[in-house]
Amino acid sequence: MGQKSYDFGLVGLGVMGRNFILNVMDKGFTAIGHDLDDEKVASLLKEGGTTDKVNASSNAKTFIDSLSLPRKVMLLVPAGNAVDAVIETLIPYLDEGDIIIDGGNSFFKDTDRRESYLKSKGIHFFGAGVSGGAKGARFGPSIMPGGSKEAYQEVKPIFEAVAADFNGESCVAYLGPKSAGNYVKMVHNGIEYGLMQLTSEIYDILKKVGNYTNPELHKIFDSWNQGRLQSFLVEITAHVLKQKDDQAEGYLVDYILDKAKQKGTGKWTSQNAMDLGIPIPTIDIAVSMRELSSFKKERVLANTLYSNKKTERLDKEVLEKWAEASLYFGFVLTYAQGFHQLSEASKEYGYDLKLRTVAKIWRAGCIIRAALLEDIANAFDKNKGLSHLLLNDEFAGMIKPTLPAVRNLAILGINNGIPLPGLSNALTYFDGFTSNRLPLNLIQAQRDYFGSHTYERIDKPGIFHTDWE
Amino acid sequence: MGQKSYDFGLVGLGVMGRNFILNVMDKGFTAIGHDLDDEKVASLLKEGGTTDKVNASSNAKTFIDSLSLPRKVMLLVPAGNAVDAVIETLIPYLDEGDIIIDGGNSFFKDTDRRESYLKSKGIHFFGAGVSGGAKGARFGPSIMPGGSKEAYQEVKPIFEAVAADFNGESCVAYLGPKSAGNYVKMVHNGIEYGLMQLTSEIYDILKKVGNYTNPELHKIFDSWNQGRLQSFLVEITAHVLKQKDDQAEGYLVDYILDKAKQKGTGKWTSQNAMDLGIPIPTIDIAVSMRELSSFKKERVLANTLYSNKKTERLDKEVLEKWAEASLYFGFVLTYAQGFHQLSEASKEYGYDLKLRTVAKIWRAGCIIRAALLEDIANAFDKNKGLSHLLLNDEFAGMIKPTLPAVRNLAILGINNGIPLPGLSNALTYFDGFTSNRLPLNLIQAQRDYFGSHTYERIDKPGIFHTDWE
Repeated sequence: MGQKSYDFGLVGLGVMGRNFILNVMDKGFTAIGHDLDDEKVASLLKEGGTTDKVNASSNAKTFIDSLSLPRKVMLLVPAGNAVDAVIETLIPYLDEGDIIIDGGNSFFKDTDRRESYLKSKGIHFFGAGVSGGAKGARFGPSIMPGGSKEAYQEVKPIFEAVAADFNGESCVAYLGPKSAGNYVKMVHNGIEYGLMQLTSEIYDILKKVGNYTNPELHKIFDSWNQGRLQSFLVEITAHVLKQKDDQAEGYLVDYILDKAKQKGTGKWTSQNAMDLGIPIPTIDIAVSMRELSSFKKERVLANTLYSNKKTERLDKEVLEKWAEASLYFGFVLTYAQGFHQLSEASKEYGYDLKLRTVAKIWRAGCIIRAALLEDIANAFDKNKGLSHLLLNDEFAGMIKPTLPAVRNLAILGINNGIPLPGLSNALTYFDGFTSNRLPLNLIQAQRDYFGSHTYERIDKPGIFHTDWE
Repeated sequence: MGQKSYDFGLVGLGVMGRNFILNVMDKGFTAIGHDLDDEKVASLLKEGGTTDKVNASSNAKTFIDSLSLPRKVMLLVPAGNAVDAVIETLIPYLDEGDIIIDGGNSFFKDTDRRESYLKSKGIHFFGAGVSGGAKGARFGPSIMPGGSKEAYQEVKPIFEAVAADFNGESCVAYLGPKSAGNYVKMVHNGIEYGLMQLTSEIYDILKKVGNYTNPELHKIFDSWNQGRLQSFLVEITAHVLKQKDDQAEGYLVDYILDKAKQKGTGKWTSQNAMDLGIPIPTIDIAVSMRELSSFKKERVLANTLYSNKKTERLDKEVLEKWAEASLYFGFVLTYAQGFHQLSEASKEYGYDLKLRTVAKIWRAGCIIRAALLEDIANAFDKNKGLSHLLLNDEFAGMIKPTLPAVRNLAILGINNGIPLPGLSNALTYFDGFTSNRLPLNLIQAQRDYFGSHTYERIDKPGIFHTDWE
């Protein structure tokens, strides 16, 4: 140790960090890890084999001194204060021109703050969202870097080697300045929330109306994963549904408590979309449903107060067709909302995002990878100024035929008291987005009535106020 | 001028400020206004009549010197930096024990900051939400004060005199410490967004499916305002619908552009609810629909790409029944979500809110006043620990009979491509809240699958993780 030799450093040797560093090693680079936890250091040393290629230290100075210049140090530590604390620990040992990469789910405004703080010390900082879970980190994640373009050139060879491969293209690309990378990762996670909520709703209505067993549900999701719904989340849903429980009779999914947790990125996506004035109701409701799920005690009580639910039976073939089309429609609308948010954020924060590039690096490695992203990349490729996926002709052609099924399934949910809030928000968003006349004229009238907030007219320019009555 | 004599001071002589000060005068108090705009000062002097009772000055020192001790100075200026600027202008002339009341829609965290800043100078500060628009300010608003209880005693006689009267009870009450008043006003406005969105949806479906004329729509809303839907917003909707246009043939509402603006309080309500983990999807979607309405150009384009809308015809009596029940259901669910948020915020921020009191001071004066608030006040009166309106037996009894109509109307919207996102979010929220088993077990399984996020089980306590496959 002590000699400046390793190509890449990584702080935070949890499962993500350990896997990422082993991935770097597999691609022919040398790497050293750092964690204050000796056990985690030992675990990496054990898995890494020879210290020629991978090493680890719980001492920050030893760690930093072992890196070749300019040093490339990636942090995979929990978002928040831990990131600031680690940065402060490293600063004394770093040299000008060194590079810190935050690979966690940091809030994008924190990334902007850190970047300008470190710039004042001559250190490059960039936020790089990493998606793909533990497996992705080990065998090829999607990486979303933003920040200094100059610094990116230094880490580019490593990132391109470790990132997931999609038909020969690496799922990483420089996205833009400042917090562009963290921002794109945040919206990625918001989309992930939406897709997961939709998947859970479709599972629910199939189960309740279709009365399918878990193996049958497994088969359905598995077959969907061979078609236009091909995606990581549909694939793992199929896997989840066939998992037997090891503690009791039957299937594990039936024993899992229906309270979903969240770590904040979905919430940030929704909150920031509101700041930008971009509607993303399918993502918003996914956040709300996780919240609602936590009120289990209240739900059980309310169930006794209100429940008199009937359940229809329906031809299974019809139900499956409606369900597949609805999930596809919901997926498209969720991506459409997420990309709409990205297009506005790009202007607002000066990211200059290429939406086509974002779609391309999401095609493999990440949690929201899906066949659909190839179509999305093509849509943005064809029309660089496209502001909304629904305005693309190909998408119009793909969506229109699904509408009867979507409407039928949404109605089925309503009639059976099965909440499909993600799907119905996708549908009402669609019906709103395609309305040349919404009833918001009445809202403007009300606002002018009680608050003199004025209104515009359809027949002439200007701002108007009426003394009502 | 110069003698310390006036009971009450008011800064910001826009229409709200001028009306509020005239209201104070009408109730037998003397008052002085302050505004840098000489025209506004002159306008108040003209309307106020004798300077014995009402005066005004564009000079801050003259204004402050004319107030009796402890000075009670209310600000009705735009939220944001203007409030801080006015406070800095006044500080040099104020004495210890004086009271500044912020009557605007300030963000509650700003109120907390200002309160502690002014406390360090011995000056009381409290945020007092004021609702009722210009008319309310003039003849009796609902006032929502929070902050120093001691300071409130000083302004209480004035506030109780000027606030709206509901059957002999004044629509003002001390709500809690710190920003409790601004917070309650924020949620009031969030509820207002929800109610307005719902009203606009019902107007839309009546118009499109029922093919009603504006005078017919006026009659419907007017008749509803005699029943359980009796409320300010239904009342003014009826008024709006009969307003003839003075610039063209026909009714004004048809000429108003369908782009609704917003000033931030609805958005803050949604964003803060997410921080608290409280689902308020009917309010969220109201914010989203205002945003969506602003994309008029995109909507018009999308309309040409997708539109093939049919419109059913339906027996008018049936349609009106469904519409009335749906609006009532939507209103109840919106209040329920808002009060749920208040109950959690009360704990989180230490407001110690009495939800019964909040409901009572909303019964008159404010924009969301409604007959329904008497029922809400009774529900919280009967059970002081009630965390959610849906868990109250009386509300269960009122809501259950509306459900068939609500489901039918939501389905009618879906079948006709008429977006009813507020109503459908109220309904899916209801169906979710009354579900003892939501499909969020699948989401927890997915999260554990790709991110090792663990899960709980229904059959035993503990935190579990599975090595899937």
